[in-house]
Amino acid sequence: MPLPTALHEELKNRFAQRYTTGESACLQHGRDESVHCPAPPDAVVLAESTEEIAAVVRLCAEHGVPVIPYGVGSSVEGHVLAPNGGVSLDLSLMNEVLVIHAEDGDATVQAGVTRKQLNDALKGTGLFFPIDPGADATLGGMAATRASGTNAVRYGTMRENVMATTTVLADGRIVKTGGRARKSSAGYDLTRLLVGSEGTLGIMTELTVKLYPIPEAISAAVCTFPTIEAAVQTVIQTIQLGVPVARIELLDTLSLSAINKFSKTTLAEAPTLFFEFHGSPAGVEEQAQTVQAIADDLGGANFEWATRPEDRSRLWQARHDAYFACLQLKPGCRCFPTDVCVPISRLAECIAETQADIAQVSIPIALFGHVGDGNFHLVVLVDTDNAKEMEEAAWISRRVVERSIAMEGTCTGEHGIGLGKKKYLVAEHGEGAVEVMRALKMALDPKNLLNPGKVLP
Amino acid sequence: MPLPTALHEELKNRFAQRYTTGESACLQHGRDESVHCPAPPDAVVLAESTEEIAAVVRLCAEHGVPVIPYGVGSSVEGHVLAPNGGVSLDLSLMNEVLVIHAEDGDATVQAGVTRKQLNDALKGTGLFFPIDPGADATLGGMAATRASGTNAVRYGTMRENVMATTTVLADGRIVKTGGRARKSSAGYDLTRLLVGSEGTLGIMTELTVKLYPIPEAISAAVCTFPTIEAAVQTVIQTIQLGVPVARIELLDTLSLSAINKFSKTTLAEAPTLFFEFHGSPAGVEEQAQTVQAIADDLGGANFEWATRPEDRSRLWQARHDAYFACLQLKPGCRCFPTDVCVPISRLAECIAETQADIAQVSIPIALFGHVGDGNFHLVVLVDTDNAKEMEEAAWISRRVVERSIAMEGTCTGEHGIGLGKKKYLVAEHGEGAVEVMRALKMALDPKNLLNPGKVLP
Repeated sequence: MPLPTALHEELKNRFAQRYTTGESACLQHGRDESVHCPAPPDAVVLAESTEEIAAVVRLCAEHGVPVIPYGVGSSVEGHVLAPNGGVSLDLSLMNEVLVIHAEDGDATVQAGVTRKQLNDALKGTGLFFPIDPGADATLGGMAATRASGTNAVRYGTMRENVMATTTVLADGRIVKTGGRARKSSAGYDLTRLLVGSEGTLGIMTELTVKLYPIPEAISAAVCTFPTIEAAVQTVIQTIQLGVPVARIELLDTLSLSAINKFSKTTLAEAPTLFFEFHGSPAGVEEQAQTVQAIADDLGGANFEWATRPEDRSRLWQARHDAYFACLQLKPGCRCFPTDVCVPISRLAECIAETQADIAQVSIPIALFGHVGDGNFHLVVLVDTDNAKEMEEAAWISRRVVERSIAMEGTCTGEHGIGLGKKKYLVAEHGEGAVEVMRALKMALDPKNLLNPGKVLP
Repeated sequence: MPLPTALHEELKNRFAQRYTTGESACLQHGRDESVHCPAPPDAVVLAESTEEIAAVVRLCAEHGVPVIPYGVGSSVEGHVLAPNGGVSLDLSLMNEVLVIHAEDGDATVQAGVTRKQLNDALKGTGLFFPIDPGADATLGGMAATRASGTNAVRYGTMRENVMATTTVLADGRIVKTGGRARKSSAGYDLTRLLVGSEGTLGIMTELTVKLYPIPEAISAAVCTFPTIEAAVQTVIQTIQLGVPVARIELLDTLSLSAINKFSKTTLAEAPTLFFEFHGSPAGVEEQAQTVQAIADDLGGANFEWATRPEDRSRLWQARHDAYFACLQLKPGCRCFPTDVCVPISRLAECIAETQADIAQVSIPIALFGHVGDGNFHLVVLVDTDNAKEMEEAAWISRRVVERSIAMEGTCTGEHGIGLGKKKYLVAEHGEGAVEVMRALKMALDPKNLLNPGKVLP
C-alpha cells in the first residue's frame, strides 16, 4: 500500500536520497533476525537529527501513517516489522557520541550509536559500557527492548543504565526525560516508562547512559560439569552467596559442540559455565576461589583460567559466537527464539523440565544463557518451510514460556514482546495491568501510529 | 468540609472503629515533619487489606472525594496533607511481612511495613534490606517517594529495589505490576512508573523488594578534613576510582557540634566523612586502604576505624541522629527541608556556592548528606512564626535548587516533590515532559482523586 501522495511528496522533497520506497530497502527494513515473516514498510527515511525525526512523526501523524523506528534490525521478536505498513525511520545515521562525562561516569549518545561504537569511543577514558546483547545493536534499540546480556548480573540491564532520554512523542513534540543526577525523586519516571516500550510510546533519539570504571583486574574461567543440573546448582549457590560475579553463563553440550566446530576451539563438549570476575587483583582471586570451591563440590572439572586479555577475549569470543555457531548446526535454518527468565531458585527445575521437552522433539535445540539472572535461551533450529518443525518449535516455545510464568518468571528476559510474545502478556501480568498499559498507550499515542501492533495484545 | 453523608455512613458502617472524623486524628493525618501548614483530611480510615483499600477508593470515587495514602507521616514535602480534604487512608495496620524468599533474595510485604520491621523479620536469613531514609518510614511511603538514604551509593534507591507491586487504581481496580524475575522485557514498566508517583497514580498496597546478603565483613571509619572542599574531593575521587563503598556521608562542622551535644559523643568538630565498606575481609581492607590514601593526600586526619559491630553502631547512630541533633540547635524550631542532588563532578562547586549563601543569612543551617550520590541536605532551622526567618529559608532553598538544576542536577534527590517542590518541576524537566506526566495522570486518575495537588504543578 503506497503512502498518501502528499506525504510521499513531502518526505521526498525534504529527505531526497535519504527517503526511499524501493523494494529492497523496504524489505530490508521489514525483517529481523527471527522467524517472523517479513512485513515491509511502504517507505524508509534515514534520519540525521532529532528534529528530522520530529518532522517525520508530525507529517505521518497528519496523514495517519504508522512510524516504525529501526536501528540495525537485530531484533528477534519482530519489533522492526511493519505489519500495518508505514514509514520505517532508520536511525543508523544518528551515530554520534555527543558527550562523554568521564568524571561522572555517563555519556550522551544519539540513539543510532551501537554498543561497540560507544566502547570504542570510551578508549582511553578508563570507562566502559557493560550491556552486551548478542548483536552489536544500537543503544536506541537496546533501550527500546530493555536489553541486557552477559554482564547484567553485575551491572544491570538497560532499565538500570539509561539515565535520560530525548524523545519524540507521537505528535512530533520533543521532550527530555530524566537527568544526569545519580538519583532523583522529581516526578514520574518517564525514562523507565520509555525504556522497554519498544517504540510504541515515543521514539528515543538521544540517550544518557551510565558508564563504569574498567576493573583493575579481570579474570575469566571455564568449567565443565557432569550434568546441567550440577552447573545450575553452582550458579544458584554463587548468586545466593552474594559473590559479585560479573558474568556467569551456561552452555549445554550441543552449544559447545557447535562452538568447537564454528570457532575451531577444543573446549570440552559438556555442560559448561563461563565465568568472569571483576575487581581488584585480590578481590578477583578471592571471588574465583569461592566459586571454584562451589564448583568442586558439585563435580566441576577442567577449570581453565584466563587472566591475560587475549585468552579472555578468545574465551568470550567463543561464548559470543554461540548463537551463530548453533545456526550452523543446520545450514539454511532460522532460529525460533525463546528468552525466559525465572527466580534463581526455580532455575534448575525450569531447565530440567525444558530438557525433558527437548528430548521429545526432532529438531536440534541448544540451550544457553545468562543464568546468573535466571535467564536462558533455547536456540530452536527450524526449516521455516517445514510445518512439522515449526509446530515443534512453537510447542517448545509455548511450553517454556508457560512454565516460566507459572514459576513467577517472565516470558522474555531481554528480547522484548514485539510481535512474538504479545499472546503471553496477559498471562504474565494479568488483564488489569495490561489494561493500564493500554491506557498509557492511548494517552501518549491516541492514533496508534508509533510502532503499531507491537507489545499490546 | 464534611464528607457527603452517604459516604460517611457507608464508611462508618463498614469500618466502625477504624473510621474516624475526630479532630485530633484528622489533624495528626494532615501534617508531616516539615514546615508545611497542616491540612487535615475530613476523615481517616485504617485499612487492613488491599480489598478494603479498593473499597474505600471505589466509594470515594463514586462521591468525587479525594483519597490520600498515609504511612507514618515522615514526609518532609507535604505528601500526606489533604489540601482538598478527603479521606486519609492509613496503611499502618497493613504491616505484615507476607513472604521472604531467602533463596531468591526478595520479600513481599504489605505497604505499611517499615524498613526496620522488615530488617527485624530478616534476622537469621543472612539477608538485609539496605534502603534507609532518616525516619523508620513504611516501605509503601518509601516506594511512593522513591526514597533512598545512606546505602544508595552501593545498593541503589527504591527505583532499583522495588520489583513488583499490588496497586489499587483510581477506580478501585486491583492490579499487579512487575514480577519476581531479576529482569524482564515484558511490557511497560508499570512498577517504576508507580515508584515515585507519590500516591497520585495508584495506591501501592503490597511490594516485592530486593534483599542483599549481609556482607561477610563490614568496617566503618570517620575522618575529618581541614575544609569541606577537601572532604568533597575525597568523595569525588573515591567514586571516580570505582571503589564499591557502601556508604559515604559528609557532615559539616555545625552538624558535628550538634551531634556531640545531642549524642554525648566527642567527635572532632570539623568537616567529616563517615564511610562504610562491605565485602570480604580482604576486600574491605583493600577498599579502606584505597580511600585512606585518597583522604591522606587531601589532608584527612583523625581516621577512626570501627570494625566491631557495637563501635559501628555507635558511629552510625551518631550519623542517623544528625537531623534530630540539628533540630535541638534551636529549640522549638522547624526544619525547612532541602534535598538536592547533582552530578558528582559539580558537587564541590555546588556546596561551595551554597556555603557562600549560608554565610549571608542569620538562621543556623547545617549541611550533610549522601555525597557519594551527589545528594546533600541543608537543615535550615526556622521559627515558622518569624517572617524574616521564613523568607531567608525560602531564599536559601530556592537558591540551592536553582543552582542544582543549572548543574544538571535535581530539585529532590530522595524526598519527593509533594507540595513543596511542584514549582521546580518544569524548570527541571521542561514543560514538554511535565505535559507527558499530566497526560499519564489524566489517563490513570481522570477525576484527580488520588492524592490531588501533589507532584504536578
